[in-house]
Amino acid sequence: TVFSSMFVSSGTSSYSYFIHLRATIHLCTSRCQKFLISRVGEDWIFLILLAFWNGRRKWMYGGLNSNMLLQYLAWVTYPVVLITFSAGFTQILAPQAVGSGIPEMKTILRGVVLKEYLTFKTFVAKVIGLTCALGSGMPLGKEGPFVHVASLCAALLSKFMAALFGGIYMNELRNTEMLSAACAVGVGCCFAAPIGGVLFSIEVTSTFFAVRNYWRGFFAATFSAFIFRVLAVWNQDEETITALFKTRFRLDFPFDLQELPAFAILGIACGFGGALFVYLNRLIVECMRKQKTINKFLLRKRLVFPAMVTLIISTLTFPPGFGQFMAGQLTQHESLVALLDNRTWSCQGVAEEFDYISHSHAWKHPQVNVFITLVFFIVMKFWMSAVATTMPVPCGAFMPVFLIGAAFGRLVGETMAVMFPDGIHADGSVYPIVPGGYAVVGAAALSGAVTHTVSTAVIVFELTGQISHILPVMIAVILANAVAQSLQPSLYDSIIRIKKLPYLPELGMGHHEKYNVRVEDIMVRDVRYITLSSSYRDVQEVLLTGQLKALALVESTDSMILLGSIERSQLQSLLSLQLGPSRRLDHLRRHAKDNDTHTLDTHTHLSNLGTMDNPLSPPCTHTHSNSTNTSARHGVRFVVSVAEIAEWEEQQLDEPVDFNNCKIDPAPFQLVERTSLHKTHTIFSLLGLDHAYVTSTGRLVGVVSLRELRKAIEGSVTVTGVKVRPPLASFRDSGNNTTSVSEVTELHKLWNHHRGLSLPREPTPPDMEDQLDDMVKNICEAHCN
Amino acid sequence: TVFSSMFVSSGTSSYSYFIHLRATIHLCTSRCQKFLISRVGEDWIFLILLAFWNGRRKWMYGGLNSNMLLQYLAWVTYPVVLITFSAGFTQILAPQAVGSGIPEMKTILRGVVLKEYLTFKTFVAKVIGLTCALGSGMPLGKEGPFVHVASLCAALLSKFMAALFGGIYMNELRNTEMLSAACAVGVGCCFAAPIGGVLFSIEVTSTFFAVRNYWRGFFAATFSAFIFRVLAVWNQDEETITALFKTRFRLDFPFDLQELPAFAILGIACGFGGALFVYLNRLIVECMRKQKTINKFLLRKRLVFPAMVTLIISTLTFPPGFGQFMAGQLTQHESLVALLDNRTWSCQGVAEEFDYISHSHAWKHPQVNVFITLVFFIVMKFWMSAVATTMPVPCGAFMPVFLIGAAFGRLVGETMAVMFPDGIHADGSVYPIVPGGYAVVGAAALSGAVTHTVSTAVIVFELTGQISHILPVMIAVILANAVAQSLQPSLYDSIIRIKKLPYLPELGMGHHEKYNVRVEDIMVRDVRYITLSSSYRDVQEVLLTGQLKALALVESTDSMILLGSIERSQLQSLLSLQLGPSRRLDHLRRHAKDNDTHTLDTHTHLSNLGTMDNPLSPPCTHTHSNSTNTSARHGVRFVVSVAEIAEWEEQQLDEPVDFNNCKIDPAPFQLVERTSLHKTHTIFSLLGLDHAYVTSTGRLVGVVSLRELRKAIEGSVTVTGVKVRPPLASFRDSGNNTTSVSEVTELHKLWNHHRGLSLPREPTPPDMEDQLDDMVKNICEAHCN
Repeated sequence: TVFSSMFVSSGTSSYSYFIHLRATIHLCTSRCQKFLISRVGEDWIFLILLAFWNGRRKWMYGGLNSNMLLQYLAWVTYPVVLITFSAGFTQILAPQAVGSGIPEMKTILRGVVLKEYLTFKTFVAKVIGLTCALGSGMPLGKEGPFVHVASLCAALLSKFMAALFGGIYMNELRNTEMLSAACAVGVGCCFAAPIGGVLFSIEVTSTFFAVRNYWRGFFAATFSAFIFRVLAVWNQDEETITALFKTRFRLDFPFDLQELPAFAILGIACGFGGALFVYLNRLIVECMRKQKTINKFLLRKRLVFPAMVTLIISTLTFPPGFGQFMAGQLTQHESLVALLDNRTWSCQGVAEEFDYISHSHAWKHPQVNVFITLVFFIVMKFWMSAVATTMPVPCGAFMPVFLIGAAFGRLVGETMAVMFPDGIHADGSVYPIVPGGYAVVGAAALSGAVTHTVSTAVIVFELTGQISHILPVMIAVILANAVAQSLQPSLYDSIIRIKKLPYLPELGMGHHEKYNVRVEDIMVRDVRYITLSSSYRDVQEVLLTGQLKALALVESTDSMILLGSIERSQLQSLLSLQLGPSRRLDHLRRHAKDNDTHTLDTHTHLSNLGTMDNPLSPPCTHTHSNSTNTSARHGVRFVVSVAEIAEWEEQQLDEPVDFNNCKIDPAPFQLVERTSLHKTHTIFSLLGLDHAYVTSTGRLVGVVSLRELRKAIEGSVTVTGVKVRPPLASFRDSGNNTTSVSEVTELHKLWNHHRGLSLPREPTPPDMEDQLDDMVKNICEAHCN
Repeated sequence: TVFSSMFVSSGTSSYSYFIHLRATIHLCTSRCQKFLISRVGEDWIFLILLAFWNGRRKWMYGGLNSNMLLQYLAWVTYPVVLITFSAGFTQILAPQAVGSGIPEMKTILRGVVLKEYLTFKTFVAKVIGLTCALGSGMPLGKEGPFVHVASLCAALLSKFMAALFGGIYMNELRNTEMLSAACAVGVGCCFAAPIGGVLFSIEVTSTFFAVRNYWRGFFAATFSAFIFRVLAVWNQDEETITALFKTRFRLDFPFDLQELPAFAILGIACGFGGALFVYLNRLIVECMRKQKTINKFLLRKRLVFPAMVTLIISTLTFPPGFGQFMAGQLTQHESLVALLDNRTWSCQGVAEEFDYISHSHAWKHPQVNVFITLVFFIVMKFWMSAVATTMPVPCGAFMPVFLIGAAFGRLVGETMAVMFPDGIHADGSVYPIVPGGYAVVGAAALSGAVTHTVSTAVIVFELTGQISHILPVMIAVILANAVAQSLQPSLYDSIIRIKKLPYLPELGMGHHEKYNVRVEDIMVRDVRYITLSSSYRDVQEVLLTGQLKALALVESTDSMILLGSIERSQLQSLLSLQLGPSRRLDHLRRHAKDNDTHTLDTHTHLSNLGTMDNPLSPPCTHTHSNSTNTSARHGVRFVVSVAEIAEWEEQQLDEPVDFNNCKIDPAPFQLVERTSLHKTHTIFSLLGLDHAYVTSTGRLVGVVSLRELRKAIEGSVTVTGVKVRPPLASFRDSGNNTTSVSEVTELHKLWNHHRGLSLPREPTPPDMEDQLDDMVKNICEAHCN
């Protein structure tokens, strides 16, 4: 329960720090305080719930030591119930809460709106689901979910503040900044690792990080780490604030220089291991998707899969069974404490002093030695973690991977200790090898490899409270990253691809030819647009066919000069305003006044019309032939004047759009055709764009959205710059700094643009056109020869 | 010498890591290896030089203990000679090497080209000047210069690579990326603090950091830290790789929770101290500038100021003199080791065990107690550092500030230790207070306050090898930052302002109204441009009057449609090509052939013409009345045909420009008039722009350069949003989410644009124009009422 209660209290601290952050910054303490109290109160419920669950399990298991079967049932039932509950609860309340949430946050910070991921429902589902999932003892982590939870807090608080105070809280940019600061905090407050947490979150969620958001992250993370650890002191668990997994390696000679190759090999091995983990994780998901029978079955019985997985895993870890060979009875926290221990397990004298920490005896087995236990542990946990993280519950993979890394490091360290019992040092003094140091290095390297980050190095220092192994850790983490990055995407990018989120791949090494691809090679030329003289019917049509969130507003179909862009929702409201009940009512009133017949009837009907938009009204019997979506929805019960209303609606649709009540973005992002792909990628990443219009001297000629950009980048990511190279790209490869063909071509094009624009307006006589053409040709030839 | 040799060896490591970085990445090992060897060789010369200097000084001082005057002379002469040499050498070779270089790097990374700061000359001046300056024992640092040196290495290597391999090394964007990775390394390799160094450099030099450059920085920094420390092991100075300033605080109970308020107060005091330091530093520079007599004198005798400052400072630190009250004989390194010591100096039992570290006795004085020594040290070092860093030598202020912070922390710690001799802890066990911990906190807080960074926290952990004080350090650093940031700019920003570098201030807190200022309110409407039909004379004129590095190319003066931008240098070469000797020669040959008179004469003159561009040629006697710059430079000695050549030149100038040989940037950055200032700032910071064109539906209407943006931001920085609010801004404040006046106005403007653009081409009959006007008015009124 120590671990679980820690989680919850860190959860508490995560919320409270947030409130404190905002409170301090925005000086609206009093209201926040109330919010704080309500939130903290909420969390303590989970804490109690969790403590209850865990207590029950231990009690059941302990009390039933006479009967193996009952013991087994007690061991297995609780995880299955908890995971099933977690999966079911999340499924019903908010399926968006499933998984770590980091891929989604990365996508959101890229500028894509995934609104359902930042709702209060998701918040509740995530917190309760996560609490249960962690309480189950499955190999699941909490780092990713904490990033999501922190972001949820930020988003909800932003909304809350906007509703209360308006003003700057309404600003979109500002909210994104806040969200990115929030992300930079999630991890810090679950490991009490403010610095490493902030860096990790930055690495994982951002492409470009605004340094001005930096101190916000640190401020919040420090505050949360402080509160988190102070709670431990107040609980009398600790005397003062220290690291979570405190190690006690010797300071004067932490490692020998000649051990560095071993650390490097450990790092490289962890790199391969990390890539394998990501691959395995993706393989499992894809397998289940492709196998139609499995897929169908899983879709019908959504809770069967997590229950089955939990059953298998807890059966295998059952301590009297196979679990005895892999320290099955230990929680993740206990295992980690044991693995980071600074004694050597494989030493001769180990038998006597081995169980000085209560957890370590779990690794000792009367029949097999500690190496076998460790190998079993690593192999079993490896696939278990890969499988468990695919369950539809809120969970992350960081912690399990961290643990596996620590075990692997310990294995290497113990091997080294056996090989060099007196240490490697050549001089007189004996410095035996510290296998715990290897465990630290392994943990950082493997988690770094899986997530493609180097800040795991900082996390381990903060976690262990010792920085003595900084050099081995950094070397191993960098090597692991180098290996893993060249083999597989990061776990989060892998999930982004699996979930098909609208992301933007990185421009990595070897994308040099990207400097030569231009926007014109990848843009979509068939742009949806509306003009200043469009009718409502046009708007309706565009809304029905288009996909983009915003539509271009151009001057006219002839000139195509871009004036701005209008959001879909704005157009929809324009349309419903035009055809809405209030205007219809108006029309009918006027109509009734004009005709002045059966006044009583109209009145009754008018009152009916008021409720007509209600979907509960009985289906209409009269539908007219050319019914549009809108007129069908407002289906007419007004039997007397149905033809009139149909006619009226048709009239309304033919009217030109009145843009006065419509918010127009007067500055949509514009690129020109010759903007390089590299620059486009940078701009999209930096500004978090979803799409940008391509203009040529003011005329709208195309649009580039994330999709096109992704395709362009990925195309040559997989084929290393051969396949997707657009026809024009090769043309430009040669001359970069010499004024050769390419520049002449550019002028030629400029010239053409120039003419293309001016021709329709002030038509040049044909002979002059020919002259111009000849001139340009001559210039080109003269230069090429 | 330990400290100095460390500097040089870390210098070595900085180069070698760089070479390694590039070698690994770009697989051009063999050539790099040679380069590496040559560089390392170079550095060892400095090392020997430095060791020589320092050895001499100690020897002189030690050998002369009989005669106080000779001792004094020996103590004073060497610093004065070294600093004078450093100042003179830098002055002669490359004045750009003066100072830390961080402000310049920040500016360069912002996209401003300061080419003279990245030359080989600057490199040599910086390295030699810095070596001498550090060897002098003045309170000067090396962090900033190291950032500059690392960047110099990167820039030079990039050039070197570009010359050898071309290709991607030619790319401007790529070079900037490399430079930013280099910056992120400078500090890491002078403190063996890879993580803190990388973070510090990011905070100090970047506004937006590309996370993809992150691992490069870590890779390079780790490598350099490794080599740096390995050299110490190979030198037999150390047994294995450990921290530079290793501390040995107790791990189990590093500090009591009740000490946190003391740490917080220390942090706040350091915040005030940091702001005071920045203010003092600026005050000194401005004083010297304003006082005309001083200024004149200093300008004439540039070496007098550093010599005088050095003389005063070394006189005051002379150990037998006033220096005895402020530990004057210790170097910065020795002082820091003593200050971070984990014993308590003010304890009762201190008399016996006080000098167990050789340096600590310097703080003990028979007459005055340790508090007085510390106060003297702090006060004297404070102003000395502020003065010393204004000397025209390559130097930084980080290390002196760090030291003062450590002393201040030690002072607070010792006071606490006296107040609570048995510690604060309430329970049975006695945990005395650790003043060394306060020193660590103070060092991080003060240096953080001066530089406006939080990563100094990480630096102290890596420097001391202990992370146990993480929470107090983080709290103090954040508080210090909060205080200092609200009082003064960072030291580097302050220097940027003093040096009037083209920088862009941050959009800090309280700039909310920036969301309401638009580009149209700040842009320059009088744009310099050339058209497709410009003559060479126009180009000449534009070049003579304009200031910007690039000029806009528009279609024609009527349409003003922006086609691209052309660099100044391109236009200059176009112009000199048109009027250059080869074309003139051509002309004369043809002329000679046509006339076929005095052939011999022409031939002689032609050979003269070949050398005519040489500035050494005697001044021309014949100059024609309307001589332009260019024709004056090509001054005509060709006596016979001088009138003809003048005529020919005039003809040439009247010809339309041939843009075929000219590189045109087809995608200059464009904004629209209604882009908000906030967005503009973000885009400028992100993309490192120098200027951007403002277009309205394709037509060039203005240009915004860094200068305008700076003015706009600073204007309201100083007056908190009242003074510089442009006329239109207030108009938009009210409705942000309601469709009110502002949107209607926007449409009105759109409409006007629409008409403004279409009118000159397809003129509307006047009555229709009136109708339109009325319509728009009606709409607006209808909506407002």
